Amino acid sequence: MEKTKVALLGAGFIGDIHLESYRRFVPEAEVTAVFSGTERRAEEFARQHKIPRWFTSIDELLKHADCEVVDIGIPNFLHASVAEAAARAGKHVIVEKPLCMRLEEADSMAETCRQANKKLMYAEQLCFAPKYERVRHLIQEGAIGKPYLIKQSEKHSGPHSDWFYDVDRSGGGVLMDMGCHALGWFRWMLGRPAAKSVYATMDTVLHKGRTRGEDQSIMIVEFENGVTGLAEDSWARHGGMDDRVEVYGTEGVSYADLFMGNSALTYSQRGYGYAAEKAGTTQGWTFSMFEEAFNQGYPQELRHFVECVREDREPLVTAADGRAVLEMIYAAYHSARTGAKVPLPFTAKVKKPVDLWHQPDLQGAVT
Amino acid sequence: MEKTKVALLGAGFIGDIHLESYRRFVPEAEVTAVFSGTERRAEEFARQHKIPRWFTSIDELLKHADCEVVDIGIPNFLHASVAEAAARAGKHVIVEKPLCMRLEEADSMAETCRQANKKLMYAEQLCFAPKYERVRHLIQEGAIGKPYLIKQSEKHSGPHSDWFYDVDRSGGGVLMDMGCHALGWFRWMLGRPAAKSVYATMDTVLHKGRTRGEDQSIMIVEFENGVTGLAEDSWARHGGMDDRVEVYGTEGVSYADLFMGNSALTYSQRGYGYAAEKAGTTQGWTFSMFEEAFNQGYPQELRHFVECVREDREPLVTAADGRAVLEMIYAAYHSARTGAKVPLPFTAKVKKPVDLWHQPDLQGAVT
Amino acid sequence: MEKTKVALLGAGFIGDIHLESYRRFVPEAEVTAVFSGTERRAEEFARQHKIPRWFTSIDELLKHADCEVVDIGIPNFLHASVAEAAARAGKHVIVEKPLCMRLEEADSMAETCRQANKKLMYAEQLCFAPKYERVRHLIQEGAIGKPYLIKQSEKHSGPHSDWFYDVDRSGGGVLMDMGCHALGWFRWMLGRPAAKSVYATMDTVLHKGRTRGEDQSIMIVEFENGVTGLAEDSWARHGGMDDRVEVYGTEGVSYADLFMGNSALTYSQRGYGYAAEKAGTTQGWTFSMFEEAFNQGYPQELRHFVECVREDREPLVTAADGRAVLEMIYAAYHSARTGAKVPLPFTAKVKKPVDLWHQPDLQGAVT
Amino acid sequence: MEKTKVALLGAGFIGDIHLESYRRFVPEAEVTAVFSGTERRAEEFARQHKIPRWFTSIDELLKHADCEVVDIGIPNFLHASVAEAAARAGKHVIVEKPLCMRLEEADSMAETCRQANKKLMYAEQLCFAPKYERVRHLIQEGAIGKPYLIKQSEKHSGPHSDWFYDVDRSGGGVLMDMGCHALGWFRWMLGRPAAKSVYATMDTVLHKGRTRGEDQSIMIVEFENGVTGLAEDSWARHGGMDDRVEVYGTEGVSYADLFMGNSALTYSQRGYGYAAEKAGTTQGWTFSMFEEAFNQGYPQELRHFVECVREDREPLVTAADGRAVLEMIYAAYHSARTGAKVPLPFTAKVKKPVDLWHQPDLQGAVT
Repeated sequence: MEKTKVALLGAGFIGDIHLESYRRFVPEAEVTAVFSGTERRAEEFARQHKIPRWFTSIDELLKHADCEVVDIGIPNFLHASVAEAAARAGKHVIVEKPLCMRLEEADSMAETCRQANKKLMYAEQLCFAPKYERVRHLIQEGAIGKPYLIKQSEKHSGPHSDWFYDVDRSGGGVLMDMGCHALGWFRWMLGRPAAKSVYATMDTVLHKGRTRGEDQSIMIVEFENGVTGLAEDSWARHGGMDDRVEVYGTEGVSYADLFMGNSALTYSQRGYGYAAEKAGTTQGWTFSMFEEAFNQGYPQELRHFVECVREDREPLVTAADGRAVLEMIYAAYHSARTGAKVPLPFTAKVKKPVDLWHQPDLQGAVT
Repeated sequence: MEKTKVALLGAGFIGDIHLESYRRFVPEAEVTAVFSGTERRAEEFARQHKIPRWFTSIDELLKHADCEVVDIGIPNFLHASVAEAAARAGKHVIVEKPLCMRLEEADSMAETCRQANKKLMYAEQLCFAPKYERVRHLIQEGAIGKPYLIKQSEKHSGPHSDWFYDVDRSGGGVLMDMGCHALGWFRWMLGRPAAKSVYATMDTVLHKGRTRGEDQSIMIVEFENGVTGLAEDSWARHGGMDDRVEVYGTEGVSYADLFMGNSALTYSQRGYGYAAEKAGTTQGWTFSMFEEAFNQGYPQELRHFVECVREDREPLVTAADGRAVLEMIYAAYHSARTGAKVPLPFTAKVKKPVDLWHQPDLQGAVT
Repeated sequence: MEKTKVALLGAGFIGDIHLESYRRFVPEAEVTAVFSGTERRAEEFARQHKIPRWFTSIDELLKHADCEVVDIGIPNFLHASVAEAAARAGKHVIVEKPLCMRLEEADSMAETCRQANKKLMYAEQLCFAPKYERVRHLIQEGAIGKPYLIKQSEKHSGPHSDWFYDVDRSGGGVLMDMGCHALGWFRWMLGRPAAKSVYATMDTVLHKGRTRGEDQSIMIVEFENGVTGLAEDSWARHGGMDDRVEVYGTEGVSYADLFMGNSALTYSQRGYGYAAEKAGTTQGWTFSMFEEAFNQGYPQELRHFVECVREDREPLVTAADGRAVLEMIYAAYHSARTGAKVPLPFTAKVKKPVDLWHQPDLQGAVT
Repeated sequence: MEKTKVALLGAGFIGDIHLESYRRFVPEAEVTAVFSGTERRAEEFARQHKIPRWFTSIDELLKHADCEVVDIGIPNFLHASVAEAAARAGKHVIVEKPLCMRLEEADSMAETCRQANKKLMYAEQLCFAPKYERVRHLIQEGAIGKPYLIKQSEKHSGPHSDWFYDVDRSGGGVLMDMGCHALGWFRWMLGRPAAKSVYATMDTVLHKGRTRGEDQSIMIVEFENGVTGLAEDSWARHGGMDDRVEVYGTEGVSYADLFMGNSALTYSQRGYGYAAEKAGTTQGWTFSMFEEAFNQGYPQELRHFVECVREDREPLVTAADGRAVLEMIYAAYHSARTGAKVPLPFTAKVKKPVDLWHQPDLQGAVT
């Protein structure tokens, strides 16, 4: 069996997770190259993980790396241009959430990949997380009747890398970074109904000195099928990663908790190495998580994409999904400024989504 | 020790709870009379609970019952007039939530009781629920730093009595019935900050044929101290009473679950008598609740009021609290119709709060 | 209403709990005197709690305190002699678990109280803990069919006072101190079937330097009705009080958790004052307990006894229960030494129960 | 990459799980043949799962199937003879728990495989279950100090196939079927200390008419390193699979729950297809399990064995482990009859382990 060759762009947090996922759970793929902007990091990552080649230039990688797939795990502001360059270089593309920074980019990415006849997958791994998939199947079986309220929340104490806090590179704060999970997952769970409106409120409560992005947000989405979505996201919640869903229907309800619900519960006087993502102290009581990549759906997602590439099938989660999510993010930032529910479809000409929240003079830009 | 004499108005669900609470946990009080509009019910309730006198007329009760305190547990539309009549008859008044149906009534009730020099307590028992009080004390100790998000949700499958579904008698649906708990409790937890704005969304998803009120709502309140409140309420959630809070601060978080979290967990093949309020089936797995009145704070609340009466102290939760809650309920219904955040203070001339939601022609009434 | 006058013997941990319980939940009683062997403690306790009189001699208290009830919360080795002295002085007696140190004492206590025509209650408060009572009622309703396995475990990191570790004053370690809860509660739950046999294993794993008693034990009791009881007890379990039960039947199962299950769940970076009994650190995640006395059944138990005294009824839990528990404790220590199941009835002549475990030369004493 | 060819013996419950595990998670292996004693079942299983060949004779399979590995998932009484035949036929062997029925068989299996130079793995998948492995690593890190008590319980309402209830084919009841998990896992967690003694109590409480084996057991094992093991097993516990562990140490504790703890929590009025192994009804509240094979460690176990075969390494769990477990099972049955702790090493000449429990005349057989 010939393996599908993958080049990893990004050697940080998500790069680690993707590499582990390919290696342990996607036997059809092999990682043949890695890119990092920092030479030392690129080299070390390659050596540590026995990846044949490493690059500090994406152009060079696209020219010289032996790969069919480019896996984009670099800061948000680079997603669109790199995805397009990769497609033009004849590579299939999988791009970490959020799809890109601007709606125009989303359209352009989709178009470029279509013309190049290359696959473009939007990497929303919650669509593959086994516990949440279990909930989706329950609902499809009719276990809870007709859904009317769907909730997802994702909270921790703040991201690893600096660029998340720099809105010029990230496009926004926690809504951009983690709110996109809720929005993509709502669509997935409900069979991609159109969204009618978005309302959002947000604030910067913990990282005020560090970012102009929000670190706390609540979003309410009304879908055309009558279901209400409630998304809560935070970079200001201590005590380890929190990722939970609730789906309410006319005949029942289903709850799932990805981290604390799955974990072992441990009391340690002296503490230990690692409890879970962003867990803080490991002394006293902790929720000791395990198989985090598998439980969050990363390997299932990557394997799905590799199969799509090998069998020439369309990925289940596409640029259209990423675009729809981004449109709701735009609307959410706009709503946070205006204090009103924003009807969809919505578009605006901005440099980055968060501008719709904190730059009042951009109001004229909204069409 | 002379006991404080209490007349119970209402012989339904809440009447039962109050009676049990007085009897088991408020030794300073005795229930001397009960009112129900239905003769048979009044008589049975009195006989069953060995209450000396029963009435089918409130006027008669106020004239002839030997009591210092009137405990109002009858439908919302009667709260104001009965409370005022009681105060004029020289009785102290405790009134079940919500305080009344209209803001004008709230003002009038407070004024009448003040003039009659009678105590008026707003019966928000969550302010006395031991588990939630524990969370409040934790926060006062600084355990979670400065709070920035406070949540409460209360959900079940719909009320016991018909009048809840008749908005002319109730004033509105689940927001009126249970949303008031969240609003009153947020104020209590945070030290009664002014609310800056309210946003709400609501729908009738399960009881459409039965009521013009909402059976599902989400409310977001922004307080002047920068804290956001998120209230979720539902009459469309099966599986037994659900009452949960979460408080997020800059240095921690605290969760409490009043029913499922406190209960025994039971699997029964054949089922058993009673699991918890609105629990539905008792076959299979159930969360078997116990000491519901105590855990929800009813006896603590009633004992507090009786002490206020005996020692001439001001109740901790007053008509001003009930009025502030009602103002937010008005704003919430208005927001649900306009799709916009409603700034506070807010007032409107309506027959009942829910009119602000479903009667577009009332828009002119808003000042 | 004339109040029933109670003298508290013991001003330590259990004294505090009993005092709070009488004051908040037993309006029919008043605490009129307190004894502590330490003058300073007696005086402070009395002054702090506004108790009229304090004593440093039990004899003096029995002679001069104005009381009808003596509530014994002093070290185990004093239970029998003090209870008998109290009964002879014309007082009703409630005695903390375990009933006493030796079987002969148990018989003598019962006889003396009978002759003096005074009530003697064995204070097993788990028989009154609301959550566990809920489980008992479930089982009586037939919810789980016929029980075949009943479990209780109680674990923390070690007692407050020194005398618990001194087996001459306590009679034994954790089996004596906390295993008695399981045994008394099994009998209560099952309707007091005779026990056929006891098997036990135990060890000193954490407090080896401090005590000759066991700090870790497992006990298996076979009852005549075919039910097996499994009791786990520990003074070596960190992370706060743990008290859990499980009852298995032919048609179902029921679980209840008194502390962690009831608590709020809190994450605190800086920590806070108090989480729960023996909780250790309050930094990081903690299970924040509340209303501990009520949840453990103390006030319900004390109120029951006061009612028995006032209405001349027999207490629900008596010296016969305490004796049966003690007999199983004897058998458990004997089993721990012999490594064999010990058939009941069982008796032995020893100075204290734990001698049956670690003094091989006592074997001859077993009848 | 050439795949390792595996023949599955057994097309029942465990056959399904192993097949799914190989297919989804062990890319280095392919299942080339299947055996079932029932022709129709063999044929259907092969056709449904696209397995090239099926057999109704093990001898034929060993002669004609193209395989390097034989995976034994047939009734216990066949384990030894089939494993030896397979090894003699030049196949590596992985055998489901328990290893075999008699100690003599265990010795013979090990010897035969050694002489044939074939690998023999004892399939205790709990040694590979990710959540329990997480606990093991925590303990190795020192998170809970020195362990002194280790618990595992596994409970459901009874096995799928008839042969489990026929002690001539199974060797015993739930202790044989599920108690072996606890024993194997204790050894694994603690680094394979020798066991000093075993005590057991057991009964037939639910399936009395159906089996002479026990359906309820408690086992206490004392290990040479001072740790006590407590194993609870049941075929009489309704409400779905229950599999939990607790490890107590001098500086902490860790709990893990494989099924209920991992699941989504669902309330369904009408019910749905499948909740979890042995879940019973799916109406009302259910614990909806997912990825059961992965969470229980089956694919990780099988992948490990295939790697051992491919790389000529010794499996982590061997016939010696299976034998040690079986020895403790012998001792447990003996203890259940004698009511005494049984010192190890222990051996006895019996046809099947359960004979040591219910056939008093076998006492002479014990050496």
